[in-house]
Amino acid sequence: MQDFRTFLPPERTLMGPGPSDVHPRVLNAMARSTVGHLDPLFIELMDNTKQLLQYAFKTTNALTMPVSAPGSAGMEACFANLIEAGDTVLVCVNGVFGTRMVENVKRMGATPVIVEDTWGEQTSLQKVEDALKQHPDIKIVAFVHAETSTGVRNDAQALCEIARQYDCLTIVDAVTSLGGIEVDVDGWQIDAIYSGSQKCLSCVPGLSPVSFSDKAVEVIKSRKTPVQSWFLDMNLIVGYWGQGGKRAYHHTAPVNSIYALYESLVMLKEEGLENAWQRHADGHKKLVAGLANIGIDMVVDENYRLPQLNVVRIPEGVDDAQVRKQLLDTYNLEIGAGLGDLAGKVWRIGLMGYACKDRNIDHCVAALKRVLT
Amino acid sequence: MQDFRTFLPPERTLMGPGPSDVHPRVLNAMARSTVGHLDPLFIELMDNTKQLLQYAFKTTNALTMPVSAPGSAGMEACFANLIEAGDTVLVCVNGVFGTRMVENVKRMGATPVIVEDTWGEQTSLQKVEDALKQHPDIKIVAFVHAETSTGVRNDAQALCEIARQYDCLTIVDAVTSLGGIEVDVDGWQIDAIYSGSQKCLSCVPGLSPVSFSDKAVEVIKSRKTPVQSWFLDMNLIVGYWGQGGKRAYHHTAPVNSIYALYESLVMLKEEGLENAWQRHADGHKKLVAGLANIGIDMVVDENYRLPQLNVVRIPEGVDDAQVRKQLLDTYNLEIGAGLGDLAGKVWRIGLMGYACKDRNIDHCVAALKRVLT
Repeated sequence: MQDFRTFLPPERTLMGPGPSDVHPRVLNAMARSTVGHLDPLFIELMDNTKQLLQYAFKTTNALTMPVSAPGSAGMEACFANLIEAGDTVLVCVNGVFGTRMVENVKRMGATPVIVEDTWGEQTSLQKVEDALKQHPDIKIVAFVHAETSTGVRNDAQALCEIARQYDCLTIVDAVTSLGGIEVDVDGWQIDAIYSGSQKCLSCVPGLSPVSFSDKAVEVIKSRKTPVQSWFLDMNLIVGYWGQGGKRAYHHTAPVNSIYALYESLVMLKEEGLENAWQRHADGHKKLVAGLANIGIDMVVDENYRLPQLNVVRIPEGVDDAQVRKQLLDTYNLEIGAGLGDLAGKVWRIGLMGYACKDRNIDHCVAALKRVLT
Repeated sequence: MQDFRTFLPPERTLMGPGPSDVHPRVLNAMARSTVGHLDPLFIELMDNTKQLLQYAFKTTNALTMPVSAPGSAGMEACFANLIEAGDTVLVCVNGVFGTRMVENVKRMGATPVIVEDTWGEQTSLQKVEDALKQHPDIKIVAFVHAETSTGVRNDAQALCEIARQYDCLTIVDAVTSLGGIEVDVDGWQIDAIYSGSQKCLSCVPGLSPVSFSDKAVEVIKSRKTPVQSWFLDMNLIVGYWGQGGKRAYHHTAPVNSIYALYESLVMLKEEGLENAWQRHADGHKKLVAGLANIGIDMVVDENYRLPQLNVVRIPEGVDDAQVRKQLLDTYNLEIGAGLGDLAGKVWRIGLMGYACKDRNIDHCVAALKRVLT
């Protein structure tokens, strides 16, 4: 058996689809002394983390907390708690994460009604409305707000409004949107939403902030069958993450990762949510201009393009993998490959959270220019 | 909204049921620069982490890796992958974590056959054999190796042998045993096993090492129905944690937590597995002697007592919560409360991983003595 040594990673610049650059304050928080997960000081930290997540999500939802696992588990938490076998769920698919939603629906014994749109385009509101008319048994409308695979922003506000007209609950994937563009859980009346720590929150990967409306909580409490996942059952988790005072043991929270998430949320609050959105919008404009100068075009229409996840066309004749390898090896710079149908055709350049700053944008454009010429 | 500041935790001594003290090397690893989860250097780190987990579990099982979530999710991963609706599963219950297994079995649409023993006693091999004779349809035997709620070691080797005689698969909870007492996955022919990072591995909470035998992998591959959890489906995770080369994206691994787990395993390897077990046995003896001196008795028979989790009787007339609060407030020392039927009657004193050392043992006995007199 080989000799194993302490791993000393290089300092990469993370401009892929996530994880994105983690702020040093957040990394420092990770290394602080671990306290017990039922320690009164940790319980206070949990309460403060909840309040800061309410701020980030723009909600007063009492059931707002981080699931102790990555975004995929946050997705599953939303679906598993709201769906019962036999339900019908409308899922909007215009990228990888929509298809993952369909997979979740199926594994819960529910029937998906799929509204499909071209990757790189928005979900059609008309198609959603047509499907809702055609299938009066639909209980939930699920969609991805910021499609990390395509760089498209779906119209969350409009989709929620249509869903409400047809008396449906909504599940929204905000993994890549939270902290980067407007997300307004109460204003848009979203029923269940999940995000990830490692995108625009500038935190390490591993946690999934979620929030459930009071209406969603009622649905969860009055289920006919138990939630199929014990680990993700909100009926139990609420006793662990409940507001103030006594906690019922459920699982052991990832204490140091919560330190990190808390610190990243403190920083978001210091900057101000709207300022963070503006910073992403400004950074995006600079990046687009810089890329245009070296002949690299955007794939998505600017009216529904994500500032924090820039999907760009790989120029003719360029070796996708070779360029990414060279950026990584020579410049310690990571950009993302295309997924699914877009593999080999696009790069995904992330400007998320701490990674969205002039230093990174200048470096990325300059490094790409050198590698491509 | 209040002002939120950076959280600066005190330096606690963690001698409860976990999380236990985290080694500074592991905390330092947490704070290192985050790399992408598909970065070639991270993929190499994943491979090395797998090899070190194989060392810790004493196995050559190819499917050995950490689930990206706490021990409860590792438990669910084992049950969800091996069970299909309609299966019959024997569960040994002699503490909290056995009952949690029953809950898992039920939520998967399977039928539990429960073999119950008194909390504080071992699972009766005879009762297990009787149940297997009586229910020839049992497919899986599940039990907890080290019951964190009672401090009892169940006889994992003997239980696996009986299960094999009746052609059953085994699922073993090794959350508190791994790294603290002998666990021999290949020697005992365990089919599925899960542990936690925050106990005898001296790592932060949040990850659950698991291992599946080739026989278990065959069962998972030939399922008639999909695994009910997408996030925990080993058919997909194996493509992400697969040995060497190309990885299929599944979820985003908690990069910095993997740094930490890796570092803790490097340290286990440096110490040597058998030496770590011996250190726990030696520490236990010292603690028992020290506690006896101040009139505190052990609850569990010494033949099947866990060295790393000492369940002790609270002396007559002593206020449980008050003592624990005083230890925490005055000495920054955490010990654990009793769970379930044992609440108010016992304390749980952990000697896990880095926490199992003379400094802690001396401090714990001295502090308890002062608080009790």
